[in-house]
Order: sequence, then structure tokens, then C-alpha cells
Amino acid sequence: MSANYGLPEFFASYRNAVQAELKEIIDGSSLTPYGMLRYHMGWQDERSHPCHRESGKFVRSTLCLLSCQAVGGDTMQILPAAAALELIHNFSLIHDDIEDASRERHHRPTLWKLWGQPQAINAGDAMFSLAYLALLKLGKNGIADNKIIHSIHMLTKACLQLCEGQYLDIDYENRLDITIESYLNMIAKKTAALMAASTSLGAYLGTEDGKVVNSLYWFGEELGLAYQIYDDVLGVWGVEERVGKSVESDISRRKKTLPVVYGLENSEGEDREKLDKLYAQEHIQGENVSQVVKILDQLGTRDYAQKLAGQYYHQALAQLDATGLDASRQAPLREAARFLLERDY
Amino acid sequence: MSANYGLPEFFASYRNAVQAELKEIIDGSSLTPYGMLRYHMGWQDERSHPCHRESGKFVRSTLCLLSCQAVGGDTMQILPAAAALELIHNFSLIHDDIEDASRERHHRPTLWKLWGQPQAINAGDAMFSLAYLALLKLGKNGIADNKIIHSIHMLTKACLQLCEGQYLDIDYENRLDITIESYLNMIAKKTAALMAASTSLGAYLGTEDGKVVNSLYWFGEELGLAYQIYDDVLGVWGVEERVGKSVESDISRRKKTLPVVYGLENSEGEDREKLDKLYAQEHIQGENVSQVVKILDQLGTRDYAQKLAGQYYHQALAQLDATGLDASRQAPLREAARFLLERDY
Repeated sequence: MSANYGLPEFFASYRNAVQAELKEIIDGSSLTPYGMLRYHMGWQDERSHPCHRESGKFVRSTLCLLSCQAVGGDTMQILPAAAALELIHNFSLIHDDIEDASRERHHRPTLWKLWGQPQAINAGDAMFSLAYLALLKLGKNGIADNKIIHSIHMLTKACLQLCEGQYLDIDYENRLDITIESYLNMIAKKTAALMAASTSLGAYLGTEDGKVVNSLYWFGEELGLAYQIYDDVLGVWGVEERVGKSVESDISRRKKTLPVVYGLENSEGEDREKLDKLYAQEHIQGENVSQVVKILDQLGTRDYAQKLAGQYYHQALAQLDATGLDASRQAPLREAARFLLERDY
Repeated sequence: MSANYGLPEFFASYRNAVQAELKEIIDGSSLTPYGMLRYHMGWQDERSHPCHRESGKFVRSTLCLLSCQAVGGDTMQILPAAAALELIHNFSLIHDDIEDASRERHHRPTLWKLWGQPQAINAGDAMFSLAYLALLKLGKNGIADNKIIHSIHMLTKACLQLCEGQYLDIDYENRLDITIESYLNMIAKKTAALMAASTSLGAYLGTEDGKVVNSLYWFGEELGLAYQIYDDVLGVWGVEERVGKSVESDISRRKKTLPVVYGLENSEGEDREKLDKLYAQEHIQGENVSQVVKILDQLGTRDYAQKLAGQYYHQALAQLDATGLDASRQAPLREAARFLLERDY
């Protein structure tokens, strides 16, 4: 695997800088909880030996820094903000893996699987705290106090939305009455809020132009919706080895991803009865997963979902245009958006 | 039960103001996760009906406001900081209850027991986030930006120590080699750090005198150690009905509380063999708990623990004196410390 983990070069351009910033923040202590965080980030194995494992695409930090770059800001100055976004995202992954009982992430056992739920909950809490320490580092880089305070506000609001979205995601597992609208509300909080915080925070720290910051907020929001819908598609039809988690997992846990919500809303007769029966079980497994996928296929669900993702993708690009920035300044964000909607992992 | 839940009047003096501040912060939304938080705070029952249940002594907010008062600060101005401390404390309780598999708190089922672990982890995360929103409210009350930033730094550092202490607390469950020194290191992080943050934050927001703030930090730290040691005593010899959790619970979960650490360090021959055998089980239950307590009793453990608590209590008072504040200004904090070391719950 190459140094940028198969990411397109432009998308990985900030990766090393963000990694270095994250390492400085997490490596502050040799205490075991921080070792768990280093394991999660792919920097050491479960026996504390250094390693270099894939640990995600760094989508949020990249969007933050590309947004800063687009408005003409100093990306190296705001690295701590990019690191904070990754810390929040990764804290939420550590807790999500417990909440969803996921045993693997990026082809490795999850934290709770190795160290037990209590220590994994606690490690997530530590990573949450580190995100705030990261934002406070902005002061040393010359960011004004009032800007740091507003940044903390932006990130905290996104965290609360993340929790609200996660609440809905878990709540929906036991329900069959989820509409496309409820689904969109859930992913707006669970995914799009932190993406919008990423683009708007990068812009906010790089410019005084509130209108541009606002447009980049909505760019992140629309892109986040597109990204999650596309993620849901990969969750059903993606190649397991590339996606890094079992294709069965979303369906098995009765997650109300877009394909499933569409399937439940649009299936009729025998198919609907079959879905009702399958979703009455606590876990959907083996052959039953294939049955669900078969029904979704027959309804043209994949096509519907990809079209919807495309719709939000184009709305995101419209928001990018609304910034009024030169096409050349928009280009990297445009390319990033395209990559996120064309990836196969 | 009286409106101040049996607390001495002076100790409950700020309770209503802090409650009102907390309600304003938590009641911002009617979403279900916030309902879980309201349940945890004792403001509503599990069916969302309003109620008034005991929900702790508000030790940290009280210490914060009494410290502010002692240095001549404006307690009403810094209420959001007092609320933030309670939110951090309560977020950690929600997660601790999951980590320790505690089924009851304040005579009511814990959050995870009612809503399941996934939603309880998530509710704790939401409360964690709300603590930062609370601190950001200080700006509206006229606190300067640089002071808010430093407050966020103080609270975040305490959160990290809390996580480190919690890590050790869980890690020690499986170990028999815990020394008094390791125990003290654990409770310094798990308990004293947030107490020190409480007293120093209240002082910091009320005065420009760094020396006084520093002394009050150490007052909180020493008081926190005394408080936790005394809590450990109540955990073994307290009256169950008053303490609100089973006397068996600490011993049953093989927690390395001070009495147990002392017992393991000082028992010999048959007693030590018996302890080794009892602590080789994953849970210590029923008659076995009584056997542990009997051995602790024979070693004079209760007396030892109370003397150690008394020692830290007196060191706390020495730090209070070191502030150089008039005796009349010190009095409420002195009285609060005495109450915390004489309570039976």
C-alpha cells in the first residue's frame, strides 16, 4: 500500500501535516489510554509496537484545509483545527463501534474488541477532550481569541448534532416506519453536520468574508448528505475488501440506510411481507441478507440512491459556485467532492 | 425530603441557581437524548413526566461558586462555569455507570439500564458537549475572551485527567498489586482533578490574583483526595439507604478502593490467602463480601482510612489559609470542606 493509502495525490496532500499535528497532540503522554488511541489511528499495534496502518481518508481535515486554501488562508496556521475535526470524527467512531457492536474497522479489531467496552468508552472520551486541546493550540499559531471561541462554538454545535444523529440512527434500528425525510434528517445530523463544520471552520479561520464562509458551510452540508448516501450504497453494493467492513453489517444490524428505507417504502405484496418478516428478527444474517439485497435490486434501489447522491452532489457544487470564488480557487474542493462521490471505499 | 435534599442550608444556597442554569442549557431541545439527560438529572421520570428527584450534592458547582465568592467575585456572572462542572461530572457518571455495570444511582435505574448501553454512551457524549456550550455562555455574562479560553483549557485538562483516572480505576480491578501510592495517583486523576478545577475555576473567574487561584487549586486537590478516601469508607461502612448504592458494589466489582488496597497490603497468613482467593473470582458476592469486610475490620482499616482522609482534609485547610484571605472569607469553604468530610451519604 502506498504512503497515501491509495488516495488521489491531491486529496492526500495535507495528510502528512495533519498526521504530524495529531501525533503531537496524542503523543503527549505514554499512558495506556493514549496507546489505545494510537492503535485506533493505526500508528501502533495492540502490543504497542509502531506500525503504519490505514486509518481512514482524513476527509474532514482535508475539506477543512482545502476550504482554508480556497479562501486564501494559511493552511499551516490552522492545522490544529483540522486535527480537532479528525479527533472528533475518530472519537465518534470509537463510540459508534461499541454502540453498533462492530468488531472490525479498517480490517483490524476495534478498540472495545481488544480492550473491552469500559476502556473503549473511556478512550473515546479522552479523544473527545483532546479535540478541544487541539483547538486551543490555535492561539499559539496566532489565531485571535474571539476566533478560537467561535471555532469552539462551531465544533461543539456539530458534536451535539452528531449525538442527535447517532441517537436517531440507533432508534431507527427497531423501526420500520422511517421515511426518506426522517432518514435525511438523521444523516444531516450524523454526517453532514461535521462535514459542514469542516468546510466552514477552514474558511472561517482563513477569511473575514462571512458570505463565503456561509456558502462553504452549505457546500459541506450538501456534500455530507451526498457522501453518506453514497456510503450507504457502498455498504450494500461495495466490494467488502475495499470498504473494510462486512457488506452484511449494515443490513444485519437493521440500519435504516437509504437503500433499506427506499426498499421498505416501495416494496409491495410478497416482497413487503418478506421484508417485514426479515426485519422482525433482531439480526438479519447469511441467506437472509441476500434476500434483502435481492428485493432492493428488483426495485432499482441502487439507481435511485445513486441519483439522489448525485442530486446532493450537484447542490454542493452550486453552493461552491455561490462563494463567488474564482474557478481556479474552487478547483481543489470540486475535485475533492468528485473523488468522494466516485470512490469505491 | 426537603427542597435541598437534606443538604446543610449553606451548602445548598446556590443549588437553585445552578439548577436553573443547567435547565436552561439542557432544556434547549425536546429531542429524546435530552430527555435522557433530564431523567439523569432527576427532573423527569422515564415516561418524560416532570418530577423532582435527588440528583447529587452539586459538590463541584458549589465549590466553584464558594471559591468565587471567597475571592470577592460575582457568583451569578460565573454560573455557566458552575453548570459546566456539573455537566462534566454527570457525563462521567453516565459513562461510569456503563463501565462499572451499575444498575442504580440515587435509588433509580441508571440510563443504560433503561435505554440500553448504546443510547447511554451517546447521551453521555451529548452531556459532555453541553459542558462546552455552557462555558461559552460566559461571554454573554461579560467574561473576557481570554478568560473563557483559559477556562476551557482548565476544564479540558481536568477531563483528560478524569479519563486517565478512570482508565486506572478499571485497570486496577484485575490487579492485586496496587500500592497506596498507585491508589492515590488514581484518585488524584479520577476525583481530585475536577475538584481542583472547580475551586480554581471559580477563583480564576472572580479575581486577577494568580497566587490565590493557585492556593485554591491545591485546596480543591487535597479536598478531592480526602473526599474520595472518605467516599471509599462510606462505600464499605456507610448506610446503604443513605449512600444510594449497594455497599456490596465496590467490593463486588473488585474496585481497589483505599480500604481494599490497605487490606491487601497489610493482611498476612490465612487472611491474605483468603483475600487472594476471593479476589481471584470475577465477582465477589454475598457472604464473600462480608468475609472481605471482616478482614478489613480486623486490620483496623476503617480507622486508617479515616485518619488518611483527615490528613488530606487538614492539608486542604492549610492551602485555604495559604490564600491569605480573611478568615470570614474562608469560612464558607471551610464549612463546605467540613460537611464533605462528615457527611454520611
